[in-house]
Amino acid sequence: MRVRNKPWAQPLIDAHPEIITDHAEKIIGNWNEKFEKVQPLHVEVGMGKGQFIIGMAKAHPECNFIGVEVQKSVAATALKLALENEPLTNLQLIAGAGESIETYFEPSEVDQLYLNFSDPWPKKRHTKRRLTYKTFLSSYQTVLKDKGSVEFKTDNQGLFEYSLTSMNNFGMVFDGVWLDLHNSDENEGNVQTEYEQKFSAKGQPIYKLAAHFK
Amino acid sequence: MRVRNKPWAQPLIDAHPEIITDHAEKIIGNWNEKFEKVQPLHVEVGMGKGQFIIGMAKAHPECNFIGVEVQKSVAATALKLALENEPLTNLQLIAGAGESIETYFEPSEVDQLYLNFSDPWPKKRHTKRRLTYKTFLSSYQTVLKDKGSVEFKTDNQGLFEYSLTSMNNFGMVFDGVWLDLHNSDENEGNVQTEYEQKFSAKGQPIYKLAAHFK
Repeated sequence: MRVRNKPWAQPLIDAHPEIITDHAEKIIGNWNEKFEKVQPLHVEVGMGKGQFIIGMAKAHPECNFIGVEVQKSVAATALKLALENEPLTNLQLIAGAGESIETYFEPSEVDQLYLNFSDPWPKKRHTKRRLTYKTFLSSYQTVLKDKGSVEFKTDNQGLFEYSLTSMNNFGMVFDGVWLDLHNSDENEGNVQTEYEQKFSAKGQPIYKLAAHFK
Repeated sequence: MRVRNKPWAQPLIDAHPEIITDHAEKIIGNWNEKFEKVQPLHVEVGMGKGQFIIGMAKAHPECNFIGVEVQKSVAATALKLALENEPLTNLQLIAGAGESIETYFEPSEVDQLYLNFSDPWPKKRHTKRRLTYKTFLSSYQTVLKDKGSVEFKTDNQGLFEYSLTSMNNFGMVFDGVWLDLHNSDENEGNVQTEYEQKFSAKGQPIYKLAAHFK
């Protein structure tokens, strides 16, 4: 998602160090200290406006959640949404343009990753930018615990086809594939992103892949 | 496909030993001798009325093709279709109710397998009957040469979801996934089955997975 710069973004981020940081690289390895309880850590790569990660934090008090967003204005919008809610002691946000998720997490620091509706980069020459390209998968594997899992959702057919092949070729083990998530048993407990709500309302199927590293 | 017994089936099969056999277990290991040329052997498991395997034999004179069908009446219908064509020296048909493909082929005798629109067996208790269940995959791996490939097509969403997971979990390497084959580049050269023609005409997407064993 490309958005216009918002002048209020940086001051809002600076005003709420209790929930958001744009210097996450300093917290690497110590995320447990940012949460009330030590419990499994789930991270969304590309949280957008935050509806998913905030919804997950509300629905699953038994886990800690971190949403990462590279665009500061978008991260600030997620922060706004978080501030509208009751304070959540199991939620942290990262406004971070780090090269890789490894900038923010130590090896084996994360229990589960979410990739939701990431940019499809449909042109072949942009393959390496897709968040399911092997270099990204390799960084996910590094920050995840042994057998750590990834949940991937998209409405983009081309990206889903590509990702099935890419994740398989990387050696990931599939736990489940859904070609129409919202009309499946897997939809129970599904927390929708803003984008997911908008596109499924148009009748487009939502694809999901759950997989783990060996 | 369940069909009524056809009294003409057995006599027709008996009259054409040059192209069909219902004693394929006797030819095991010697399929090369049934063809004019020694060239790669491609086998369709469940050829139905034969449109696909006959079309492939016509389109690819550089390969040998065998269609296997467990229901004799259906195999006889495929035979009829083959007889309506110019004789094809690269085509053989098997009317065979063998427990497994290993009844008809020796280890490493086959170069490529096709599974087209097989019975989805949607009930969970029938999982083991799906042609992409691990016991079937194991028998495919046995008859296929090293790194032998499988091409799988279906219009059934549940079977495709299941098969992606099952083939991944078995350790197969995906070469490509198509969620709408007929509207993809992969459709060039695609030979349709009778069933595929009928269902895609209704606007249903056709799924395809190409994968190989390690």
